[in-house]
Amino acid sequence: MTTVSLNEDVSAGLTRGEQLHAFATVLFPICRSITGNGVRETLRILAEKIPIEIKEVPSGTQVFDWVVPQEWNITEAYIKDSTGKRVIDFANSNLHVLNYSTPIHRQVTLEELRSHLHYLEDHPDWIPYKTSYYKEDWGFCVTYNQYKALTDPVYEVCIASTLSKGSLTYAEYFIPGDTQEEVLISTHTCHPSLANDNLSGIAVVSAIADTLRKRKNRYSYRFIFIPGTIGAITWLAQNEQRVRHIKFGIVASLLGDRGSFTYKRSRRANTEIDLIAAYVLKQRSEHNKIIDFFPYGYDERQFCSPGFNLAVGNLSRTPFGQYPEYHTSNDNLELITAASLEESYEVYLQILTMLDQNVCYVNTNPKCEPQLGKRGLYSLRGGTNDTKAFQMALLWTLNLASGENSLFDIAQRSHMDFEVIREAAFQLKGVGLLTEEKT
Amino acid sequence: MTTVSLNEDVSAGLTRGEQLHAFATVLFPICRSITGNGVRETLRILAEKIPIEIKEVPSGTQVFDWVVPQEWNITEAYIKDSTGKRVIDFANSNLHVLNYSTPIHRQVTLEELRSHLHYLEDHPDWIPYKTSYYKEDWGFCVTYNQYKALTDPVYEVCIASTLSKGSLTYAEYFIPGDTQEEVLISTHTCHPSLANDNLSGIAVVSAIADTLRKRKNRYSYRFIFIPGTIGAITWLAQNEQRVRHIKFGIVASLLGDRGSFTYKRSRRANTEIDLIAAYVLKQRSEHNKIIDFFPYGYDERQFCSPGFNLAVGNLSRTPFGQYPEYHTSNDNLELITAASLEESYEVYLQILTMLDQNVCYVNTNPKCEPQLGKRGLYSLRGGTNDTKAFQMALLWTLNLASGENSLFDIAQRSHMDFEVIREAAFQLKGVGLLTEEKT
Amino acid sequence: MTTVSLNEDVSAGLTRGEQLHAFATVLFPICRSITGNGVRETLRILAEKIPIEIKEVPSGTQVFDWVVPQEWNITEAYIKDSTGKRVIDFANSNLHVLNYSTPIHRQVTLEELRSHLHYLEDHPDWIPYKTSYYKEDWGFCVTYNQYKALTDPVYEVCIASTLSKGSLTYAEYFIPGDTQEEVLISTHTCHPSLANDNLSGIAVVSAIADTLRKRKNRYSYRFIFIPGTIGAITWLAQNEQRVRHIKFGIVASLLGDRGSFTYKRSRRANTEIDLIAAYVLKQRSEHNKIIDFFPYGYDERQFCSPGFNLAVGNLSRTPFGQYPEYHTSNDNLELITAASLEESYEVYLQILTMLDQNVCYVNTNPKCEPQLGKRGLYSLRGGTNDTKAFQMALLWTLNLASGENSLFDIAQRSHMDFEVIREAAFQLKGVGLLTEEKT
Repeated sequence: MTTVSLNEDVSAGLTRGEQLHAFATVLFPICRSITGNGVRETLRILAEKIPIEIKEVPSGTQVFDWVVPQEWNITEAYIKDSTGKRVIDFANSNLHVLNYSTPIHRQVTLEELRSHLHYLEDHPDWIPYKTSYYKEDWGFCVTYNQYKALTDPVYEVCIASTLSKGSLTYAEYFIPGDTQEEVLISTHTCHPSLANDNLSGIAVVSAIADTLRKRKNRYSYRFIFIPGTIGAITWLAQNEQRVRHIKFGIVASLLGDRGSFTYKRSRRANTEIDLIAAYVLKQRSEHNKIIDFFPYGYDERQFCSPGFNLAVGNLSRTPFGQYPEYHTSNDNLELITAASLEESYEVYLQILTMLDQNVCYVNTNPKCEPQLGKRGLYSLRGGTNDTKAFQMALLWTLNLASGENSLFDIAQRSHMDFEVIREAAFQLKGVGLLTEEKT
Repeated sequence: MTTVSLNEDVSAGLTRGEQLHAFATVLFPICRSITGNGVRETLRILAEKIPIEIKEVPSGTQVFDWVVPQEWNITEAYIKDSTGKRVIDFANSNLHVLNYSTPIHRQVTLEELRSHLHYLEDHPDWIPYKTSYYKEDWGFCVTYNQYKALTDPVYEVCIASTLSKGSLTYAEYFIPGDTQEEVLISTHTCHPSLANDNLSGIAVVSAIADTLRKRKNRYSYRFIFIPGTIGAITWLAQNEQRVRHIKFGIVASLLGDRGSFTYKRSRRANTEIDLIAAYVLKQRSEHNKIIDFFPYGYDERQFCSPGFNLAVGNLSRTPFGQYPEYHTSNDNLELITAASLEESYEVYLQILTMLDQNVCYVNTNPKCEPQLGKRGLYSLRGGTNDTKAFQMALLWTLNLASGENSLFDIAQRSHMDFEVIREAAFQLKGVGLLTEEKT
Repeated sequence: MTTVSLNEDVSAGLTRGEQLHAFATVLFPICRSITGNGVRETLRILAEKIPIEIKEVPSGTQVFDWVVPQEWNITEAYIKDSTGKRVIDFANSNLHVLNYSTPIHRQVTLEELRSHLHYLEDHPDWIPYKTSYYKEDWGFCVTYNQYKALTDPVYEVCIASTLSKGSLTYAEYFIPGDTQEEVLISTHTCHPSLANDNLSGIAVVSAIADTLRKRKNRYSYRFIFIPGTIGAITWLAQNEQRVRHIKFGIVASLLGDRGSFTYKRSRRANTEIDLIAAYVLKQRSEHNKIIDFFPYGYDERQFCSPGFNLAVGNLSRTPFGQYPEYHTSNDNLELITAASLEESYEVYLQILTMLDQNVCYVNTNPKCEPQLGKRGLYSLRGGTNDTKAFQMALLWTLNLASGENSLFDIAQRSHMDFEVIREAAFQLKGVGLLTEEKT
């Protein structure tokens, strides 16, 4: 398999953000759903970037309370008026078809047709995005203007879809680290031509994976590219034994719009990832928000269900439902920007890096202060301009490194920057005054 | 025994509040004390309402650090002036006699008489209520105007009382529930003609007992009608083995005046009853108050002594000593209103009902969300107008029902009304998604 | 050994504050350092006040990560100009010599001399105090005006010091109490002619020791008079087995200036001494400050190192480095006042007394209230004017005396003064209603 790394693209003259936007552009036209060939095609293109493993779980597989549904595929769909003109055509936008629509091809009265149409009066030029996964139905999503123009008494409707035994397709990518403890990063892959609501996640997460696989990490990292809800449930059901290795995780979504960031805490609320994500977001901008867990939204619902209760939060830019283009045809490639995608990548990486570096060291000389002078640490500046501040960082780190405090805890209690404490720990470890706690 | 239920009275055309006021009116003239026939007569009338069990504990019985005192009874008392006129007469108000007064019948000088008189200069027409249970003494309580009118050099005083071996009388009523865990509701019965300070409690508690015995309850309920202090101590001494079944309790007092409610927390401060009583009071009116425990007041002093440390609070309207008529002849049937008594009954019942419904359910499908759609729960409204809010109530309840969270805890964390969460739990239990935790 | 107690001085007509200032005046001229005869002379004079035990720890002794250094002594030092005039002379101020300076006696050029001079441009008439314990160096500390006056091309410099195998000298004084649990009070003895920065500590601590040895104490008290850093490390290394007896402690320093008090919490932050010191300081003045622990400052750094983590705070007036005269020749006998020294003594004694009295009593009659009347407690006033408040103090003490609450805890929860609660406990213990918890 030939993989083109994101960094190679960067070296090809694009900023990382432009490269991520270009990747979203490639994926945009594909008609994805929770199963089917659209997902397969998406993952095939993703596999050119990072060496994901693609999994197929057969329709009918019991996954906890759920069953993997029949696979849905679609080739064509339209509404023809009495003159034979295609007034609505799937070829123009895959949003026109109710996602998971059952097949149909017959004449219908205007009245019957109308009961199968979805539209938005408030945004007369936008097509809404609608699904019917678990209730058999057919339908079209149209602009309000298109809706109003349908005045013929009878129309020919055609949805050339299939619902049949197949499989649910997802991708997984594992980067082993120094420890078996894993960080889980999950993003959903089930939305058709919507840019922010899920291509931004796929693009940013693939770039994170590409960066992490090229460096040495303390934690192992597991990336899953899955359909929402049924995908997370399927993954958890099929990987129940692995769950105990997951130390924390983030559900990635909505990472391309121009809004500030919102981190939604895990159900456990005060885990290390919750504290560190909040720290990073608040450090970067006071406009970023931290909100409490609630059992709705993306797949943190499943990861935080009481039987798992994982330390998994959600990090997005503008949350779902809070921007007008959400789940409409205007969640398009213009809604997302290269700059936003790049910043999202940076924020994720900053959080993950901080978690990876956030060791609980143990002072090897815990009784009284060690003599820093004889070890050459007394006038070190540790990358800062301030010798005195770095002295304090050394003393705080020694004082609190009793095994129960992480570097982040030390930074918090000392009111010093994490970076300075991390550098102090690095220097102290270098002269043998700190050891890494056994995990 | 014929019992006339409170509800029958209600059906006789009186509101519940009017019926409670009428009951207080019947009990008002009786001269009660911590022992004696006044209490027996009171409990005999109470037994017509609810099937209480009446207990007699002999004088001289050791109850922890205390001894059940001699029984006090009184038939007549007066002060006669030199013309033979009864200027003070127990027949006019039983408050005129110092409660537990020793007998006396002789001529006394004005000077000696004055040293045995109690009065209120600030309220010249009110008779104070005074007692001398544990120090032998005789005395009269008079209005300040009566006091000033006593100018004869010598008076004949007569208190035809007896202090002799008898018993302490109290009543108990037990309603068995689904579990052995008990809720204790206690009210004092030792005050003579004072309406708010104790008849309001007796009336409201009897109505609560009458309501609870007619419905199915999760908890068992124990009602005790006892003299203050010595009664609670006697009950605890004689029922020490039962105490471990008491999950929580309320001391009921001062429930008929027009003031807002005050809940005084248990010594443990944050028990379930403390949180729920505070929630109900604050939900009903911002004027209601929650105050911390202090080791003074009513019988919560005994229930919260360190050797028991029960989750027992006190719920009154205006607290003791904070209304001018407290412990005077003006704490009469006009101070208490039918509306206040009825509202007190409702508040108690709301708190007790919420406690009874406040189960810790366990999600039977804790790994990932269960599929609500296939169980018909997806578009339920659960008694609210808002399908979406009810969906959230279902999801919150499933998410937090891991056995350690009560429905109240879930309501608090989700910022939803207890009622909506309770209804969600009811629906989820109906389809087998929740079971009741073993207690 | 003849000891002249501080109280005898007081009876000689001086206030305690004046006596403490006089004691500092006696000690002021001595040239102290972390080792050497200056410390010995200081402790010899201290031994006239309290019966301290003087210890000598040989140079070269390993003490945790450190080694007891060579002993430093000095007889004379000067800088002579070309005319043979001593322009700088140790005889004028022992601050003139860099403390722990290596010996030297030769001609030096002005340029070389300047590289060994320390001065303060901002305070042109003050001599700074500088040390070089762990890096061999010679040097002089001079006023900026003296510095500017040095214009000869060559000077004769002489420092008649010795650095040779000897010992580190410190003093210890132990007062046994009812229990083996100890309160540690430590003050440093290593500064030469600086009044606030360390003579104030030596004086105040000696007065506290003198008072405590004349009264009966619950805790044992251990006083150590040690050189900063290396002294505390040496004491801890040589007394590691005793450390488990230390229940709490205070490092005493900077107790003579006119500033308000600052208490720096122990690393554990909320221990009994932290709470009580804060209570006393805030009760005395709102200008007093409570600050969090940080691993810098005085010997609390060593006592609070993670391998010991003792409940040891620091109580000073103006903290180190926060007054302009700090570590200069202007930290002299005029900077400290008799009134400040006396107040410091009082604050320390108040804190120590409160700790000593802060027993966790157990109610011997925990089930229901005991009958106070029959024990004569019902109308006691307990030193207050207010019978009712003292009643409440009795009831609170009985209610909370379940073994886990100290008298301070009871005072805090009841919002009553510690003194009133302590008196209530005294009365209750007198009638057998409280016993002292086994420690």
